[in-house]
Amino acid sequence: MTDLVTRRAALLGPNVPTFYKAPVHLVRGEGCWLWDAKGNRYLDCYNNVPHVGHCHPHVVAAIAKQAAMLNTHTRYLHDGILDYAERLTATFSHNLSQLIMVCSGSEANDIALRMAQAVTGKRGFIATDATYHGNTTAVSALSTRRPPIGGYPDHVRLVPAPRTLDPIGGTTENQGAVFAQNVKAAIDELEENGSGFAGLMLCPIFANEGLPDVPPDFLQPVAQVVKQAGGLMLIDEVQPGFGRTGQSMWSHDWIGIAPDVVTLGKPMANGHPAAAVVARPDVMAAFREAFGYFNTFGGNPVSCAAAMAVLDVLEQDGLIPHAARMERIVTSGLGALRFLAETQIRGRGQFFAVELSRDGAPATELAKWIVEDMRTRGVLIGVIGPNANILKMRPPMPFDDTHATHLFSTLEKSLSSCPV
Amino acid sequence: MTDLVTRRAALLGPNVPTFYKAPVHLVRGEGCWLWDAKGNRYLDCYNNVPHVGHCHPHVVAAIAKQAAMLNTHTRYLHDGILDYAERLTATFSHNLSQLIMVCSGSEANDIALRMAQAVTGKRGFIATDATYHGNTTAVSALSTRRPPIGGYPDHVRLVPAPRTLDPIGGTTENQGAVFAQNVKAAIDELEENGSGFAGLMLCPIFANEGLPDVPPDFLQPVAQVVKQAGGLMLIDEVQPGFGRTGQSMWSHDWIGIAPDVVTLGKPMANGHPAAAVVARPDVMAAFREAFGYFNTFGGNPVSCAAAMAVLDVLEQDGLIPHAARMERIVTSGLGALRFLAETQIRGRGQFFAVELSRDGAPATELAKWIVEDMRTRGVLIGVIGPNANILKMRPPMPFDDTHATHLFSTLEKSLSSCPV
Repeated sequence: MTDLVTRRAALLGPNVPTFYKAPVHLVRGEGCWLWDAKGNRYLDCYNNVPHVGHCHPHVVAAIAKQAAMLNTHTRYLHDGILDYAERLTATFSHNLSQLIMVCSGSEANDIALRMAQAVTGKRGFIATDATYHGNTTAVSALSTRRPPIGGYPDHVRLVPAPRTLDPIGGTTENQGAVFAQNVKAAIDELEENGSGFAGLMLCPIFANEGLPDVPPDFLQPVAQVVKQAGGLMLIDEVQPGFGRTGQSMWSHDWIGIAPDVVTLGKPMANGHPAAAVVARPDVMAAFREAFGYFNTFGGNPVSCAAAMAVLDVLEQDGLIPHAARMERIVTSGLGALRFLAETQIRGRGQFFAVELSRDGAPATELAKWIVEDMRTRGVLIGVIGPNANILKMRPPMPFDDTHATHLFSTLEKSLSSCPV
Repeated sequence: MTDLVTRRAALLGPNVPTFYKAPVHLVRGEGCWLWDAKGNRYLDCYNNVPHVGHCHPHVVAAIAKQAAMLNTHTRYLHDGILDYAERLTATFSHNLSQLIMVCSGSEANDIALRMAQAVTGKRGFIATDATYHGNTTAVSALSTRRPPIGGYPDHVRLVPAPRTLDPIGGTTENQGAVFAQNVKAAIDELEENGSGFAGLMLCPIFANEGLPDVPPDFLQPVAQVVKQAGGLMLIDEVQPGFGRTGQSMWSHDWIGIAPDVVTLGKPMANGHPAAAVVARPDVMAAFREAFGYFNTFGGNPVSCAAAMAVLDVLEQDGLIPHAARMERIVTSGLGALRFLAETQIRGRGQFFAVELSRDGAPATELAKWIVEDMRTRGVLIGVIGPNANILKMRPPMPFDDTHATHLFSTLEKSLSSCPV
């Protein structure tokens, strides 16, 4: 392993972090389990990309079959992208009936931004101050991570994300209204500085912000503000989409807002590089008029076959209602544990957050310790949130009662040995 | 097929062009051949993405095997990306020893631009006025296709591309010096307007510009100018790379320039979505310091296995020397045909251009007619160049004497029936 770490630094360069102080050297995956090179088994409570389970045989077979048959691009006609587009868009409301297929959520969000610019003729964007929507130059300008060369662009404004501890506006009840007011103020700033307002991009469950405990109607006021200002709601379903939240295929349906553009990514093809932008015909037409967009790999027959197979498994195995059931089981099981801190437990289907605080302050060290200790015990989890004090669990969708029991018992052992 | 065209418009939106007036509905590929839904066979003289041939069994097997074993991301350790990085970077000189793996050439070029910004602390870029380097917001700003919302950015300058007909600077001999002078003038403009000069991005064989007939030392003067100005040479090997040009693995080696950054894409994994940025350690460190870049799908085990299999086939089948041999055979065969126009035939390994002009003016209609007619005769070719008067042939690398003979005889039939 030391050898791998050395080779990695030599070949990939500095500042390419791995998870965990002792990185995991993986060689095999199946369902919710991963194995390292020494044969140790890990319960995967972290990875949402292998949506229907690591190496799901139906997806693997679809990839292998199509890769052996044909893999070209969308300048030729092929049934794959059309069959997939029909099946996928049938799961959307709000006249979200057209799609562009790309390779990554970053590419999808990069397009979504330009769709808003094409429709509005304006340049300005708003996002939260604790988000991440991707890694292209344009999309990473919405991130707070590091300033771009030449400083933050004047066409971007970041507003405070909703929080469970220390909610913006003082109380949880006020957050939606205050969030909307902040967006309104940011729109005014963008209009004043000449950028104008093109759109608001956000993840409907605020996944990177730490899955804060906001009510389903939280986004109603801000949706009104955005609509009144003539901007677009750019809804990033890369994390909550494809039934992750257990309530419905798309989390924006659950919270009752009508997006102008929706972006999809990570789980779409179970790890095969595929992502998409779904939009209304008027929005798509504006984009297609303004930009001559073509993506060599996007929508290729193999990507479509993989993505189609994911929909098959989601349906056949009833993984969306399963996620709703697991939300109750896992939040309840987590609630029965003693986390050595004040604890806020939140679940959105198969997406769980345990926010840890001590005397009202983020218990960052405790959260980090638990994550590292759990790794040594063979259970993979992570942290999120601006203060890195929120345990993040977002397992493959087939995660079930047995896996949950293993998670709880391992957490119990970990917490009972915790020195922090 | 009409049904597919109608469904395509309904599901993908307007302005999503296909090749050919009568689009080809593909269902199967093997080697240099493609088949449509009616069982018609097409000789593929166009697609460089299936680099070692459509559905090459070695690549298909590698994908199927790894997809069934494990597909995760680079936050865990895995041998795949390290083995591939070692083997790939061993083919580079100039201390280009580190890599980032991504999903598309667009993502790779988007990173290359930021590498130049990270190293120089400047924002400005130069490219040619007839190029295409990708489809992200940042990269598409280097394209002349359509102006971004808000107009062309002030940090980009486009200089005239070299040409075979009507060379910049008046004569072919002068082009290198004039190209360098134009870049110098663009650098001065960027410095004056406050952007500063970060880098020059170009394809070393000017593929999208129409593969103009420039001597191997063409880029020497501009490389000097860029170096003296403290900018980076960002070399886009997405089209000429992986031995396409028949002289060497990388076209920048053939023309004797030392890039600071090289980007790779389309042929890298034979159609599986994979691409990469290769850079010197100092350049990589500057980027990794400035941007916290992570790509969920980039460098995943399946992509690495597919890319590794491509290198296997390239080596085992001696496809680079084969491309050099085919350059002679195909340029000679094309030279024996009567193209009903003044004809400039150019070859760079398995990349061929036939520039057609009449009375010194681009014969655009003729070129377009030939492409359409060849499609009806079961041979797929395209056009390139700012005037769309250059026949473009860039077949899978196993394209051999038999395929070439079929191409020549079909071209002959086409030309003998040409009414244009």
